[in-house]
Amino acid sequence: MSIQQKLQSLNITLPAVATPAAAYVMYVRSGNTLYVSGHIAKKEGKPWVGQLGRDMTTEQGREAARAVAIDLMATLNAACDGDLGRIRRIVKLVSLVNSAPDFTEHHLVTNGCSELLSEVFGDVGKHARSAFGVAQLPLGSCVEIEMIAEIV
Amino acid sequence: MSIQQKLQSLNITLPAVATPAAAYVMYVRSGNTLYVSGHIAKKEGKPWVGQLGRDMTTEQGREAARAVAIDLMATLNAACDGDLGRIRRIVKLVSLVNSAPDFTEHHLVTNGCSELLSEVFGDVGKHARSAFGVAQLPLGSCVEIEMIAEIV
Amino acid sequence: MSIQQKLQSLNITLPAVATPAAAYVMYVRSGNTLYVSGHIAKKEGKPWVGQLGRDMTTEQGREAARAVAIDLMATLNAACDGDLGRIRRIVKLVSLVNSAPDFTEHHLVTNGCSELLSEVFGDVGKHARSAFGVAQLPLGSCVEIEMIAEIV
Repeated sequence: MSIQQKLQSLNITLPAVATPAAAYVMYVRSGNTLYVSGHIAKKEGKPWVGQLGRDMTTEQGREAARAVAIDLMATLNAACDGDLGRIRRIVKLVSLVNSAPDFTEHHLVTNGCSELLSEVFGDVGKHARSAFGVAQLPLGSCVEIEMIAEIV
Repeated sequence: MSIQQKLQSLNITLPAVATPAAAYVMYVRSGNTLYVSGHIAKKEGKPWVGQLGRDMTTEQGREAARAVAIDLMATLNAACDGDLGRIRRIVKLVSLVNSAPDFTEHHLVTNGCSELLSEVFGDVGKHARSAFGVAQLPLGSCVEIEMIAEIV
Repeated sequence: MSIQQKLQSLNITLPAVATPAAAYVMYVRSGNTLYVSGHIAKKEGKPWVGQLGRDMTTEQGREAARAVAIDLMATLNAACDGDLGRIRRIVKLVSLVNSAPDFTEHHLVTNGCSELLSEVFGDVGKHARSAFGVAQLPLGSCVEIEMIAEIV
């Protein structure tokens, strides 16, 4: 099954690529490495505002991280001129979870992104990762995730 | 206009390269990729102490981020043996903003760095980026920014 | 002296490679670059729980960061099929220190990791680095460190 077919089987439609909120670009290619900017979680096109351990549950955080995965795939798709089969490996994620001082399940929140990538990309989707709690995120978003991928 | 001429037209003199505050080096080259250590904001050679949303405005944070850009360029310049024309791309920034729990304009603070890099390097300066709020920074600095660049 | 001999002279035995706590892998190789996932500090096999500036001293944080260095070397060793001589450079660390809002010695904590790497690898161990304070870490761990290395 191609990546596109896999996305369809999951009822996932990739959105338009996000526009940077500031003076940067959504991705840069250097050699075969694709550096994807941090994508904040969005809900209905607006920043998904919240903080884990204060006004969001781990399960809600997982959903937000899954939504980020979809936006990251949209950016990858643009970088691949629409052919996600050109992605050779999802190399690494860094996941920033907007956290109250006593929240310690950043890894479970981040699984919402990691698991969808593995489901869509199979072995190509198996990535290294760091996840941690941050004091606050741009526009109050609950999760921000950046990615490194290998492209051919 | 060369990068050096561009810097002169902006009245920017690159300072001496910072000395690491601890057991590391300011940059490492691997292949054509230059990994630049996190540079904390400094004012008159000392850590620029403060926290956004507590005792610094977004505009002051922007100025601090702009100052970091100048220090990052000084390190790039050392890595290029004084020829910044060897930088093929500013690939990525990670910007850590020392933030009170309710500050949400990390992206605007970070623009102080991003915009100066774009102004100096033009298209070469267009980079991917992540920006977020951290609980605290080394020596109480208000902003710390690390960089990946492509060098020839 | 080989890396293995150096480790023996320091009485360091590399542990079994950690199992990811979630849906990711401990490292990914892309070209000659090895991306190592964030490793949280552990004590006797369990997360080393604590926060700098609240219930841990800088010296205790240094010990925790040193323990992370040992776990990172175990992962490197696995990636090198047991021959750490294949590591050409420790390229970069990102060190996340679980910090109370007024703790500002993240760089000194992180030295516990950086200094051991330099001791074991010599010039090969000289790395770029960022260190900063985070609101909280997975499982309440006091330090998490990720690494980029060049491998042949």
